[in-house]
Amino acid sequence: MEFTDVRSEDGVTRRSFTLSVAGEDVPAVIWAPEGASGPRPLVLMGHGGSQHKKTPGIRARAVQYAQRLGYATLAIDAPGHGDRISRQEAATLMREVGARVRGEAPAGFTPERMRQMGERSRLAIPEWKAALDAAQGFDFVGSGGPIGYWGVSMGTAIGVPFVASEPRITCAVFGLAGLREGATDMAQAAAKIAIPVEFVFQWEDAVAPREAGVALFNAFASAQKTMHINPGGHMDIPDFEGASWERFFVRHLGAAVTAKQAVAAE
Amino acid sequence: MEFTDVRSEDGVTRRSFTLSVAGEDVPAVIWAPEGASGPRPLVLMGHGGSQHKKTPGIRARAVQYAQRLGYATLAIDAPGHGDRISRQEAATLMREVGARVRGEAPAGFTPERMRQMGERSRLAIPEWKAALDAAQGFDFVGSGGPIGYWGVSMGTAIGVPFVASEPRITCAVFGLAGLREGATDMAQAAAKIAIPVEFVFQWEDAVAPREAGVALFNAFASAQKTMHINPGGHMDIPDFEGASWERFFVRHLGAAVTAKQAVAAE
Repeated sequence: MEFTDVRSEDGVTRRSFTLSVAGEDVPAVIWAPEGASGPRPLVLMGHGGSQHKKTPGIRARAVQYAQRLGYATLAIDAPGHGDRISRQEAATLMREVGARVRGEAPAGFTPERMRQMGERSRLAIPEWKAALDAAQGFDFVGSGGPIGYWGVSMGTAIGVPFVASEPRITCAVFGLAGLREGATDMAQAAAKIAIPVEFVFQWEDAVAPREAGVALFNAFASAQKTMHINPGGHMDIPDFEGASWERFFVRHLGAAVTAKQAVAAE
Repeated sequence: MEFTDVRSEDGVTRRSFTLSVAGEDVPAVIWAPEGASGPRPLVLMGHGGSQHKKTPGIRARAVQYAQRLGYATLAIDAPGHGDRISRQEAATLMREVGARVRGEAPAGFTPERMRQMGERSRLAIPEWKAALDAAQGFDFVGSGGPIGYWGVSMGTAIGVPFVASEPRITCAVFGLAGLREGATDMAQAAAKIAIPVEFVFQWEDAVAPREAGVALFNAFASAQKTMHINPGGHMDIPDFEGASWERFFVRHLGAAVTAKQAVAAE
């Protein structure tokens, strides 16, 4: 795998690369402690609708996980997102998703469009698997370390079927999504997930109604699963949930090393 | 206030004392870093049904909060509990509550008995206020520090009306309890609570049905409230929730000091 861009800042190195999956170019990025080598925990982060692989929330946590825990973090652009669409398409998508999050029904979200988005989400699964294969080929990740998944909203819509089909992933953070009546694919995928899950949900979310959120939480087969409910809308997850995700990963991905230790251990 | 018993172990001093409230003797206990003086955060811990002021969960956290954060922790025996009843009565109560937690309807829990327990819970409110007054009179607590409340199950049944009526308390952990239809006193009390709340709930709790738990969470007026739902019964709260309560108190009771610093600052 050839890196198209490598930058180091504040003790963290970010490498960009492009996967080829079923004829599609899939842009990917991985963060790790600067100078790290050898196996380490890996977190896969799936961005939300209209966002992209280096969206601020993902970037900030990837850097912190590398600095504080010595983790590697992998992200890819979902189908129809990020560098896979033009700037103009991205701006239109952002307006449409913004309207949906505010509870407005934007003209763009026709039933046909929603069906297409569902189709596209399915494409993401082999892309995630290819990205994970590639990451495990890097000497600073390896195939021995534990792997977690994080993704809310579209990151859950894609992540639930992906994680259900991916035995390498041993814990997952989902949220901001629900199980609507008749969504049998999603229900079946959730029922296959038995790893520890932390599920974050907003109680006044215009995108995911309460009943649908509780139904998705109930659908996970995991013996260890927690649902965190907070007031407010789709974009209002409190900061302390970010701290909770980090502790969740520390609990399940094994002993953490600091970036300094990761470098010193070379 | 005269202490009836003072013991220090592992850097923590536990002082026992007895309050007199409306003709009742109310046994109380307070933990603080050994040798501490001056104001510090105070946590009030309300025990569950059939438990008592030094029940293992309370004792362990009180010691940790003193050691790690420099906090003081106050607990009292609820009406009809702990040193306020005989050993035989306590054993009977434990059997009855145990049956209730397992989803059995023990003979003891008649409607009249439930009404009496409700009455007794109301007695606890002036007792908690007297205990808090006394604690604020101790030089190692003072009246300047922030105050939190923790109590689940009966600790919530008593804690919600108590916290609703006590402006000195600035954050609270509740849980393992619900709002049943017609419980207007509880609903009114919850609606008066606008401080940050963390609400822990067990999804298969024989004592508090899901709908009642969600209804109580919904009833709090707090802008900042979180509900943590975990699988399992009344006694199955996962250990990581204990760590979450500690972080909740650290977030809301201000800067933490270690016991060592608390002693050094004398």
